[in-house]
Parts: sequence; structure tokens; C-alpha cells
Amino acid sequence: MSRLPVYEHVVQYYETDRMQVVHHSNYIRWFEEARVYIFEQIGLSYKAMEDTGIVSPVVSVEAEFKSMTGFYDTVIIEVRFTKYTGVRLNIEYTVKDKETGTVRCTGRSSHCFIDPDSKVISIKKSYPEYDTILSSYLEE
Amino acid sequence: MSRLPVYEHVVQYYETDRMQVVHHSNYIRWFEEARVYIFEQIGLSYKAMEDTGIVSPVVSVEAEFKSMTGFYDTVIIEVRFTKYTGVRLNIEYTVKDKETGTVRCTGRSSHCFIDPDSKVISIKKSYPEYDTILSSYLEE
Amino acid sequence: MSRLPVYEHVVQYYETDRMQVVHHSNYIRWFEEARVYIFEQIGLSYKAMEDTGIVSPVVSVEAEFKSMTGFYDTVIIEVRFTKYTGVRLNIEYTVKDKETGTVRCTGRSSHCFIDPDSKVISIKKSYPEYDTILSSYLEE
Amino acid sequence: MSRLPVYEHVVQYYETDRMQVVHHSNYIRWFEEARVYIFEQIGLSYKAMEDTGIVSPVVSVEAEFKSMTGFYDTVIIEVRFTKYTGVRLNIEYTVKDKETGTVRCTGRSSHCFIDPDSKVISIKKSYPEYDTILSSYLEE
Repeated sequence: MSRLPVYEHVVQYYETDRMQVVHHSNYIRWFEEARVYIFEQIGLSYKAMEDTGIVSPVVSVEAEFKSMTGFYDTVIIEVRFTKYTGVRLNIEYTVKDKETGTVRCTGRSSHCFIDPDSKVISIKKSYPEYDTILSSYLEE
Repeated sequence: MSRLPVYEHVVQYYETDRMQVVHHSNYIRWFEEARVYIFEQIGLSYKAMEDTGIVSPVVSVEAEFKSMTGFYDTVIIEVRFTKYTGVRLNIEYTVKDKETGTVRCTGRSSHCFIDPDSKVISIKKSYPEYDTILSSYLEE
Repeated sequence: MSRLPVYEHVVQYYETDRMQVVHHSNYIRWFEEARVYIFEQIGLSYKAMEDTGIVSPVVSVEAEFKSMTGFYDTVIIEVRFTKYTGVRLNIEYTVKDKETGTVRCTGRSSHCFIDPDSKVISIKKSYPEYDTILSSYLEE
Repeated sequence: MSRLPVYEHVVQYYETDRMQVVHHSNYIRWFEEARVYIFEQIGLSYKAMEDTGIVSPVVSVEAEFKSMTGFYDTVIIEVRFTKYTGVRLNIEYTVKDKETGTVRCTGRSSHCFIDPDSKVISIKKSYPEYDTILSSYLEE
């Protein structure tokens, strides 16, 4: 299994809320930021995939908020591919404070791949080069 | 058990993304919109609670995306209190297209209540009037 | 000159920031909310227009922040069409606290209309029925 | 006059809208991202300032959208301090595509500095060390 890169995010002012910490919905957006960045790094550019006609919607997402992130903190997001069937991909996320390593949030998302007519695509069958990449990062 | 009101949301342009449907993170924000609205309607104003020193952070959230919501669609969000322990509250959400009734998204969130020093509050012990309200809407 | 309807918005938790008031970028989004709502009310549905192949991008926007809006405040947004040339539309916004009438924000936006190939459309020439509507609400 | 650093931003999926380009409100957020980053680099940390009791609200903002930014494009944001009176600061922004240099958006914002009671602070009088920094980057 190859190792996925780690994503880094600096907390913006507009991501905080009146509780004076990051609004919880932004972690869901950071999962996406990390996912898109990491896909790009391993040769699975979202933009290139969408140009080819593959769209990868989020089927489900969940997050547990462990501790609060403040303005201008830097977080790192570790990503793991926990399941890949050729048709479906499950991803796990751990958001940590960069400086202290304290876990801020853990989460999971599930994804499928569809064509422009919303028909489910088998990456395994139709895009073997992408299949090879996804498989190589899958955790046993 | 009393019945909770239903929340209605009209999809904004800025909530759509390049897939030409609502970005999935917005459903998490709509859960909050529905929660805040419904709390207000049943006599549990978030603003009043925060003025009293009760903050209610989201402990966890999850969502399954069933079908896609388009620009300027109206969705209704049904909310159910599925668990309430006096200290912790679990909420379920169903987002439906207002016109067709098609389910767009289902989800759950879990909440605790803390004081300004981040110490967990027992609503049951410290705010019996709020406890009565929450209990009366709890689904058996 | 006909009178444009007024738009109402309830401030969401996720729209506040660590200054404990609404983040300034949201007023720009509320301008859009008001614009889309009002267009809909006067027979110029954005969705219908986009289905016809008319896209109306924002050419410029500006806002002056006069006083701060808090969580769960209701604001009303008054909109005026200040210039319409058949090709370009200028809009003015006043955001007021619904309860007190205090002005929160004033702003302006400028819009053109383009076809799917990004070519500028003359509404006057190509969509006379829309032209009539826009003209009828133009302030002298 | 010292030279301000340049800020870089990678366009996120959630920043695009159904027009398949970046939603215009996000440029206003990018202005803030650039401002906060640059202040940090020149020794004017927003976080440190807020800890000291200085809050710097946006008094006004404006933007002209010149060309469209797509998903996963990298933009650079150049910032200039165009006016500084000791009490008020005016900033100009130019957002360019990193690869081509094409201007995407130009804009301006105006800022004051207030204490926790919302009273206007003269940086010149009360924070001479900050005054020196701001003055040194002011364009003649």
C-alpha cells in the first residue's frame, strides 16, 4: 500500500462563528479540500476526471467533533481509503492541530462515480488506470 | 409526544456548485437552520439560551445524500428528537422536496450543552423548564 | 414605475463570525438572495432565464457596512433598479433591521446578460417581454 | 515603501456555483484571506491584535469581476495599502490567474479599528508600533 499525502489548511476568519471557533460545517468542506488535493497529488485530478465525464458525488458523510479549532490555527488532515470496490470508495479523515497534534475531528465519506447522465460508472471496468491508482492506496 | 414544526428552505444560487446542484455541505447548514428555527418555535431560543450562558455545540453529524436538490427548489426539513438524556440530545432530519415529497437527504446530529467555561451542563438538573420542553417532544 | 417587493432574511448561526456578528461577505450573498427572490416575484425567474440560455453574471458589487447584524435578527432588504440600458442593469440595496428599521448595510450591483457562449445579450432586442418588465420597475 | 507579500489561493469545489465558475461572493472572502495572511507576514497578526482588544471591521468593500475563475485554478492576490490615516486603512486587491496572469477581479476595502466597546481606536496614538508598520507599507 502506498502512502497518501497529508493536507494542510489555515483557518480563515469567515470560517469561525459566534461561538468563536470554527463552524462545524466547515470540517465537511475541509474533507473535500483534502480529498481534492490528495486525488490531484496521486494522479486523479477531479478537474481532469470531470472533463472526461466522471463526476464523483458524495453519497454520505459523517463527522465527530472532538475539540475546537480557532481562528488562524493550522490543521493537518490525514486521509485513508478504507474501502474500494471498483464502484464505491470510502474515505476516512483525521483533522489534527498542526502544532499540538490534538485531534479536532474525525470523519468518513462515501463516494460513487457517475457519468453525465447520472449512471453509475464502474471505475474498475471503464477506467482501469484510475482503478490501479485507487487500489494501490487502499488500506488492507 | 408533541409534534415539532417543519422548516422550509429555498435553495440559493450560492448554495449550488459546479455539479449544478446543491453542494453537500449545505445540507449540514440546513440541519442547523431547521434546528434553530424549531428550537425557537418550541420556546428554546438559541439566542436566549446563549444569553443565559448555555452553548450547545454539535458533537457529531452525519448525512446520506439520496437525490439532488436544484437551484430555487424549496425543501422541507422534518426534525425528530430521537434521544434525550438530560445531558445529550440526538436529532434526526429528513430533507424532502416540497413539491414532490422526494427525499433529498437524511441525517442525524448529536448535541451537548456547555457553559462558558466549556463544562458540560445537565439541562435536567440546571434548567428544568428547558428539560420539560425537550422531553415533551422526544419520540418514544 | 411599479414597486418592487421587499425581501426578508433571518440571520443564521453559520453566517456569524468570531466578532459575534454577521460576516460581511454574507451581505453580498443576501443581495443575491433578494435579487433572485424579487426577479421571481416580478416574472423574471433566474431558473427560467437560465433554462432559456440567459445567464446574468455580477459585473461589480459594493457594500457599505453601517451597523452590525446579530444572530437570529431578521433583516429586510429593499431593492431598487437604478439604471437599465437594455444590456446592463444596476441595482441598489438597503438592508435594514426589521424590528427597528436601523440601516445595516447599503450596496449596489451591476449585471449584464450573456448566452451560453459568454456573448453579451441585449435583453431589449432579444427578450422584449423581459425588457418590458425590467423597464417598468426602473426608477426615474 | 516596503513591498507587501503576495497571497495564493487554490479554488475549492465548494466555491464554484451552478454557472460552473467561482461564486462572486468568494472573492470578498479571498480579499479577507489575503489581508489576514499579509497582516500576519508583516507583524500585524489579526489574532494577536484581537487578543490585545483591537477588532478591525470592514467598513466597505467593492469588487469588479473581470473574468471567471474555474475550479482548482490557482489565483494570486496582490494587495496595496492606498490610504492610511492612523484611524482608517484603505486596501486595494488584484486577483490574477497564477498561470496566465489574467486579471480575474479588482477590489477595494476600507477598515477602521475598534475596541471591545466598539469605540474607534487611533492606531497612531494608541499602538505606535502598529502605526509604524502600516505606514511603512503605504503607497505614496
